[in-house]
Amino acid sequence: MKVTVNRKAHFNAAHRLYNADWTDARNATVFGKCANPNYHGHNYELIVSVKGEIHPETGFVMDMKVLKELIDVEIEEKFDHKNLNEEVEAFKTLNPTAENISVVIWNKLRLKIDENLELSITLYETPRNFVTYCGE
Amino acid sequence: MKVTVNRKAHFNAAHRLYNADWTDARNATVFGKCANPNYHGHNYELIVSVKGEIHPETGFVMDMKVLKELIDVEIEEKFDHKNLNEEVEAFKTLNPTAENISVVIWNKLRLKIDENLELSITLYETPRNFVTYCGE
Amino acid sequence: MKVTVNRKAHFNAAHRLYNADWTDARNATVFGKCANPNYHGHNYELIVSVKGEIHPETGFVMDMKVLKELIDVEIEEKFDHKNLNEEVEAFKTLNPTAENISVVIWNKLRLKIDENLELSITLYETPRNFVTYCGE
Amino acid sequence: MKVTVNRKAHFNAAHRLYNADWTDARNATVFGKCANPNYHGHNYELIVSVKGEIHPETGFVMDMKVLKELIDVEIEEKFDHKNLNEEVEAFKTLNPTAENISVVIWNKLRLKIDENLELSITLYETPRNFVTYCGE
Amino acid sequence: MKVTVNRKAHFNAAHRLYNADWTDARNATVFGKCANPNYHGHNYELIVSVKGEIHPETGFVMDMKVLKELIDVEIEEKFDHKNLNEEVEAFKTLNPTAENISVVIWNKLRLKIDENLELSITLYETPRNFVTYCGE
Amino acid sequence: MKVTVNRKAHFNAAHRLYNADWTDARNATVFGKCANPNYHGHNYELIVSVKGEIHPETGFVMDMKVLKELIDVEIEEKFDHKNLNEEVEAFKTLNPTAENISVVIWNKLRLKIDENLELSITLYETPRNFVTYCGE
Repeated sequence: MKVTVNRKAHFNAAHRLYNADWTDARNATVFGKCANPNYHGHNYELIVSVKGEIHPETGFVMDMKVLKELIDVEIEEKFDHKNLNEEVEAFKTLNPTAENISVVIWNKLRLKIDENLELSITLYETPRNFVTYCGE
Repeated sequence: MKVTVNRKAHFNAAHRLYNADWTDARNATVFGKCANPNYHGHNYELIVSVKGEIHPETGFVMDMKVLKELIDVEIEEKFDHKNLNEEVEAFKTLNPTAENISVVIWNKLRLKIDENLELSITLYETPRNFVTYCGE
Repeated sequence: MKVTVNRKAHFNAAHRLYNADWTDARNATVFGKCANPNYHGHNYELIVSVKGEIHPETGFVMDMKVLKELIDVEIEEKFDHKNLNEEVEAFKTLNPTAENISVVIWNKLRLKIDENLELSITLYETPRNFVTYCGE
Repeated sequence: MKVTVNRKAHFNAAHRLYNADWTDARNATVFGKCANPNYHGHNYELIVSVKGEIHPETGFVMDMKVLKELIDVEIEEKFDHKNLNEEVEAFKTLNPTAENISVVIWNKLRLKIDENLELSITLYETPRNFVTYCGE
Repeated sequence: MKVTVNRKAHFNAAHRLYNADWTDARNATVFGKCANPNYHGHNYELIVSVKGEIHPETGFVMDMKVLKELIDVEIEEKFDHKNLNEEVEAFKTLNPTAENISVVIWNKLRLKIDENLELSITLYETPRNFVTYCGE
Repeated sequence: MKVTVNRKAHFNAAHRLYNADWTDARNATVFGKCANPNYHGHNYELIVSVKGEIHPETGFVMDMKVLKELIDVEIEEKFDHKNLNEEVEAFKTLNPTAENISVVIWNKLRLKIDENLELSITLYETPRNFVTYCGE
């Protein structure tokens, strides 16, 4: 009897899409205005989903207060009001597309969440563009 | 060729989180302000999802008017403007966490929906906290 | 050149609608299921709107961080996860309708916000019912 | 390491629910006000979800600009501001329920999206009624 | 001490934009795809706002249950699942733009709401296009 | 008989809050993480509101297609996927707070909209922070 609990969070960040192995011209062709070297930014909305058995004593799969705190410390403090390309270690060598950001977040949280719990991530880059990653 | 049809509903209710086998102090430690003995409350948003074959004559998996009526009778009439702990039978002995509420709703609806149709439930306790249960 | 800055906040609370001068029967007739003596509850969404001149040095009408903190201390700490009728002083003698709650919130905040700034309050009791009060 | 990318789009259309093999009376009984011969309409919200490996050079599963353009050409230009029953070929012989519309959209897009990518469709007929189809 | 109470409602309808005094060509030029003679449609979201004194006995400006019922009878029953041009009397001679629909709704409700209460109407034709009318 | 028509638009941009007359330390103290010299960013949601008489021939206050196009050309093309501090002329000497951005947008649009129409601007910096400016 497994239930998924979901917690929404958000962070506001600057980024640009850029492949360092390419010329500027190719970056501009492939990534369009997202390659702007002066950066642009987003209000990222994040949903962290954790699936597991309900603990009979608490009625919780995972205490939402603990999950909220974990997202604050592991993700919001590191990503919020930051320039992802310049200030988040993982994106110094990895293009900060929504896809790659979702994988980085999943990897960070996977280390901190009980291995009996399944983890998936939904990340809204804009209200019209979003991605989901579940580690498979 | 299976399609999932989803219907949103809502109910407003009071509850508190509480384990009757624990001391008040332990309830306060584990559940924090959610353990307030005077209750607090939520606008619960419910999504009921039913998956099955499209009937060739109607083009419906399940008539949404029938599903809406079923949710009204089985869930909204019993949960809306109620104190879940005091007035909903299931929660007299079960802690009304979002997880447990979703299981109770799933069990109630499962009895009333054609067994050829798969059922899952999403329940928003707040816009930032929600759970999903599909009976597995 | 006046701009209005708006900050959203929320609190989850239990309440019932009740006039202590009336019989229970009259309360039930007028307030319907909202009069339930066991309480029900809501996720209240609050928008606090402050209108004034832009400070030339900061570009702010009012620092949103200060406004957020003020709403936390004056409103959220006192209303969140509370039973409004039982635990918020103002509603011991005042029926906690959305209308009256908005006036109480406006009065609390008015004392703490610079008198050169105009104040108005929008309070959502549900996504379909909300009220606005601007002190007039 | 597969990620799902999702793109939201919308179209506004008129339709009626109607089975040409039935009498008008039976249509009215089964479909209620949705059978109105003068039509009614909706703001359809569409989410197109594409799952696959992240390309190491771009960091994309599928370029969102390409997906947006594809939805524009294949779906929005053909469905937006149209009468689905009268003006969209598929619905001349198929009842335009949300279920059937989602299957028609999935079939149209499946032809244009790389077969290594999984496709699913979510279609909101109203904010409270929506369907999902993934081709199974 | 005046508070505004707001109630959201909705209706789904077909319409077309059309001036009967013009040629079809001019209608097509001015109204574009909105002039489609086969109609298109929308999920209209309606907010009815009523401003007045709080009644000291009830704490209400106007009982939301009464306002909801009034909107049901006066607007939803007459507009929902209808073709506005063909089936709503007012639009047989008036172009059903969002602007004109808001005026028609305001006029209908104004007759039924206490003259001591101020009335305004917000009507969403789509999530991106909406209008407001307050009778001035 | 004046109606307000409202059109939503959006743009994604990077910015930082910064007063060039201040030391870095004072900028950091006043603007906190918003002063990050590497920038952060937002999905700005913009509502442009235009109030005036309904034209009897069209039923429009202002053709929404024209308003949409005007916002595209005057605002979205100049602000979207840009670094506001570095790439938008007005903010080279003006701190791009939400308040100041709303005034700049209002001034740009005021020049292009018929003087018989009243103009106001609502700008969401995040879903919880937004501002309104109407030129007064």
